[in-house]
Amino acid sequence: MAEPQELEQAQQSHETLQEISEALDNGRFVHARRQLQDMEPEDIAHLLESSPRKVRNVLWELTDPEDYGEILDELNEDVKDAIVTTMAPEKLAEATEGMDTDDLAYVLRSLPDDVSRGVLEQMDAADRARIEAALSYPEDSAGSIMNTDVITIRGDVEVDVVLRYLRMKGELPEATDALYVIDQDSRLIGHLSLTTLITSQPDATVSDIMDDPDEAIQVDTSDTDVASLFERRDWVSAPVVDENQQLVGRITIDDVVDIIREDASHSMMSLAGMDDDEDTFAPVFKSARRRSIWLGANVLAALAAASVSNMFEATLDKMAAIAVLMTIVPSMGGVAGNQTVALVIRGLALGQIGDSNKRELLLKEAAIGLLNGILWALLIGGIVVVWKGNWMLGGIISAAMMTNLIVAGIAGVLIPVLLKKMNIDPALAGGMALTTVTDVIGLSVFLGLATLLIT
Amino acid sequence: MAEPQELEQAQQSHETLQEISEALDNGRFVHARRQLQDMEPEDIAHLLESSPRKVRNVLWELTDPEDYGEILDELNEDVKDAIVTTMAPEKLAEATEGMDTDDLAYVLRSLPDDVSRGVLEQMDAADRARIEAALSYPEDSAGSIMNTDVITIRGDVEVDVVLRYLRMKGELPEATDALYVIDQDSRLIGHLSLTTLITSQPDATVSDIMDDPDEAIQVDTSDTDVASLFERRDWVSAPVVDENQQLVGRITIDDVVDIIREDASHSMMSLAGMDDDEDTFAPVFKSARRRSIWLGANVLAALAAASVSNMFEATLDKMAAIAVLMTIVPSMGGVAGNQTVALVIRGLALGQIGDSNKRELLLKEAAIGLLNGILWALLIGGIVVVWKGNWMLGGIISAAMMTNLIVAGIAGVLIPVLLKKMNIDPALAGGMALTTVTDVIGLSVFLGLATLLIT
Repeated sequence: MAEPQELEQAQQSHETLQEISEALDNGRFVHARRQLQDMEPEDIAHLLESSPRKVRNVLWELTDPEDYGEILDELNEDVKDAIVTTMAPEKLAEATEGMDTDDLAYVLRSLPDDVSRGVLEQMDAADRARIEAALSYPEDSAGSIMNTDVITIRGDVEVDVVLRYLRMKGELPEATDALYVIDQDSRLIGHLSLTTLITSQPDATVSDIMDDPDEAIQVDTSDTDVASLFERRDWVSAPVVDENQQLVGRITIDDVVDIIREDASHSMMSLAGMDDDEDTFAPVFKSARRRSIWLGANVLAALAAASVSNMFEATLDKMAAIAVLMTIVPSMGGVAGNQTVALVIRGLALGQIGDSNKRELLLKEAAIGLLNGILWALLIGGIVVVWKGNWMLGGIISAAMMTNLIVAGIAGVLIPVLLKKMNIDPALAGGMALTTVTDVIGLSVFLGLATLLIT
Repeated sequence: MAEPQELEQAQQSHETLQEISEALDNGRFVHARRQLQDMEPEDIAHLLESSPRKVRNVLWELTDPEDYGEILDELNEDVKDAIVTTMAPEKLAEATEGMDTDDLAYVLRSLPDDVSRGVLEQMDAADRARIEAALSYPEDSAGSIMNTDVITIRGDVEVDVVLRYLRMKGELPEATDALYVIDQDSRLIGHLSLTTLITSQPDATVSDIMDDPDEAIQVDTSDTDVASLFERRDWVSAPVVDENQQLVGRITIDDVVDIIREDASHSMMSLAGMDDDEDTFAPVFKSARRRSIWLGANVLAALAAASVSNMFEATLDKMAAIAVLMTIVPSMGGVAGNQTVALVIRGLALGQIGDSNKRELLLKEAAIGLLNGILWALLIGGIVVVWKGNWMLGGIISAAMMTNLIVAGIAGVLIPVLLKKMNIDPALAGGMALTTVTDVIGLSVFLGLATLLIT
């Protein structure tokens, strides 16, 4: 995926980082500050995320407070938390003045209660009301990612009037691609895209040229569903309504892009047992504590596998070659099963897998397990016969390999699907559960057959 | 992540799928066709992706050919390939009439040469020239994802004239949020957003109200860089220029969203050894063959681990408890190391990690390894002492655990960073390389110490 350019881009920003950290090391703060002034807020955010924590705090001090709001908007959650908790409420309230409602609500949500109350108290009444409304919607819902900067018009006016009204306003909210048409009860009855507005005759009436709002987003829709709607419908912005069809805000594509990026990196990070908000340069103790939970789960899995071997201690005692070979079958099963798990987790996230097609998927993955089972059973069996000069051992490892790869295919489908049914995130628990199954089955079959047939 | 709603949405589309497949099973093709006619092209694409292959082909036959172009636009690459290769060139040329330049070029790129030539020959000269131009840009470059449906204006005209010109056109290309201002040599000199156009006075001159085009995308920029620019700058569309600053097209956010989704799922799928284009319902043989390559790589890794155990066969022969316990240390090392690998791969993909901060990252991950090493060394050591009643064995497993978790942290940073330096995709090779290192080191230290101290 275009690695060289990516590298180049990364290197460029690292040259800036290098230059700024050298300036800081030499006490040339004025130089560093000047460099920061030339940068866009989103690039400063990236620089902060790429900086070790001690550099990060100095950079923040050197940044123009005017840009604080926009920078906070762009930061990874953990990094944002770390910075925000060091700021006094007055300073924070000041910094957040320029932020969008949704982004500010997001920041406040992650603050300790007394700090966020402090910030709210520093704001003027209108802003506070707006933010409190946003905070009243559940996290990860459409309500929490929407903005309230919507331009509404009535259906009975003419295009010419709308254009004059907009000219009078002088400036439109960011990413405005449509105006929303409401009735006297603020109910959404249509939307008028700017392109339609521009290309219509000045004497046309809004209600004649507007589009139906049949796909307005309900305020309690999950943010993941919002993202998949935007993705499928190629929207740039979309109106949000409450249960009475009253317009309450709009969601714009820039916030949706962040959700898509987060949801997608969530699967990768979760499969490895990591939090997707994790700051790349998080404090050591915090990271170690978070990660140890996952390692603790793996201790149980590893002990389960060891208990299986333990049942066959007598066999292992008689023939050390069995101990030497016993890690191969679980390893292959784990790799094959995790291929299936990755496929199924993606399919579940994209809404491709459900009751209607689970059976086909199961059969398909079992069949792939069988085919690869035959291939690798023959190959590994052959290697073992040549290496250890023992035909029986070769046969046993072949049989265990074939069994375990079929089990891996079936478990790779069933585990994520069942976890999802139980409302457990399949990306978080799927990989480890799978590995435990393939370890236990692989060891049991291999050691069991060896016990029966050799010793 | 809002699992229940996601489930609901998935279930809804699966009810449709269920209903349609039942209709097909009962030969009620008219009913199925009617259902398909009521669906949006993007929803039909989703239905096709969610369908086992035999159902998929029938569905395609029942779909209105008018929608073919738009549906192909939305399909996953492997699914698209499977469908397109079954169609005759004339039919395909007809189906693709409504497609965007970039999407059609994308489809043609993935076809066998003779088929894509056949399709091109069926098109009229103007369309063919447009597509051939798009095909001349390298895959995964800005040129290959841009559209040529750009509206250009001159800088010396007045707002009023522009508005009249647009009204005359009657319709604007999808996701148009700006007009591009060019000079007499087609060089991009500015862009005029629709919101600025609408809010400006009718007698204002374009060159006075337009914005600078300083961030135009070069036609050879990689698509990943394009995506990160859109993400950071919150763009909806952006102009693309060639080396002479001449405007050649524009990129819209909907195509960028697809790239972001693909790049992000690429990391997860690659870490498990899967192709991110993989069709969830791909043919068994094709999938088995693709996946066996990865399993083959793992055979080498598993044999490397077995060779290490083999060196200590005499030790294993003397004490079976060692064989029982020997899988625990490699397992914990693999899990801890893969946490680091996931963090580093994400950091590399986001351009956060470079020469300037690699050292801090390495120290941080080694420190986390040390902390978790101490924790789990004590715990596992204790368990082993109680379980096996052998203080020495407990001490040995503790020492091996601590060593292996520190190694895991260091290797977890170094392996992806080095792979990236060698222009090898760290997501593809990183996980397996890491596991091989932690398996070999974990086994060597544990079995080596056991050999020295016990037997």
